[in-house]
Amino acid sequence: MSQILRQQIEKIIQITDAEFDHIFPHFTTKKFKKHQFVIQEGEYVPNDYFILNGCLKSYFTDKNGKEHILQFGMQDWWITDYQAYYNQSTATINIDCIEDSELLCLSFQNREKLCAEIHKIEHFFRKKTNKHNIALQQRILSLLSNNAKEKYDQLLQLYPLLFQKVPKQLIASYLGVTRETLSRFKSSSK
Amino acid sequence: MSQILRQQIEKIIQITDAEFDHIFPHFTTKKFKKHQFVIQEGEYVPNDYFILNGCLKSYFTDKNGKEHILQFGMQDWWITDYQAYYNQSTATINIDCIEDSELLCLSFQNREKLCAEIHKIEHFFRKKTNKHNIALQQRILSLLSNNAKEKYDQLLQLYPLLFQKVPKQLIASYLGVTRETLSRFKSSSK
Repeated sequence: MSQILRQQIEKIIQITDAEFDHIFPHFTTKKFKKHQFVIQEGEYVPNDYFILNGCLKSYFTDKNGKEHILQFGMQDWWITDYQAYYNQSTATINIDCIEDSELLCLSFQNREKLCAEIHKIEHFFRKKTNKHNIALQQRILSLLSNNAKEKYDQLLQLYPLLFQKVPKQLIASYLGVTRETLSRFKSSSK
Repeated sequence: MSQILRQQIEKIIQITDAEFDHIFPHFTTKKFKKHQFVIQEGEYVPNDYFILNGCLKSYFTDKNGKEHILQFGMQDWWITDYQAYYNQSTATINIDCIEDSELLCLSFQNREKLCAEIHKIEHFFRKKTNKHNIALQQRILSLLSNNAKEKYDQLLQLYPLLFQKVPKQLIASYLGVTRETLSRFKSSSK
């Protein structure tokens, strides 16, 4: 399973077996059941999570009890409450499992230690954070545009696998549309 | 003026005079007039911009010609189209000046060069990108929450100086409310 992480790292930097053998023990593996919380609002957020397998969602619940989905996560994506993780503060969002999931946990301390020890690991995480930034900018532009059909087409184009993994009502919630509207989009995009 | 940049860098890492003298020539200074474009949709985005003084906004224009504000920028903030800058592709948003502005321009090549040469500069940019990530996550949660009064209070708390620099109709546009609603918020927040 560690190969999934190594493959992602090697898309950005080259590492030797010895280097990977040093890096990998900084992660711990955890298994979560479908519906289980990984992060709950108000709790301390110790880890960033690299997804070995499974499917997760991050969301926040507003005062009226309505859930708003921030992000999904699938194999070889990273997920956490980044605001809480980077600031080492408590979560303002929840993360739970859409299906049984296995995660590699990287504590903030271990991430900082690896980045300080190995320049190219710091490079890897800077590049990953840049990519995350791009995804967040796209999400903001998509939310601002208010055109649900465009949001749907963009999501389908960027992450086709999501549509196989994530239940339709969650995709609809992410896009801010009803399930009926989503079904209409699906038939018109075929 | 270079001190504004140095002060920001030294909030995260320690650098010597000699190091700063090496780093600073990788930036070029440019002056822009009020209303002048820094980045235009469809154009190549060569630089990230550190704001020495002035005030800017990034926004995109939808198919109906409506402007949606993504971000403001003030002294010692960074601004660019990060999707285009990191991918070295063309802009999907515009950036223009709300008032006369002076910017330090850092090309993608120079940023990568400095990060490769000096480990602690890579650390600086990773930490800055983390902070940008937090701001983007906050913007998404604010957009999802749909509670304009909460968005207003959050913006005022995070960036009080914005309310002195940015015209009211742009703050209203950023929050997605009318100017009348904004005036109501202002009187109820005193």
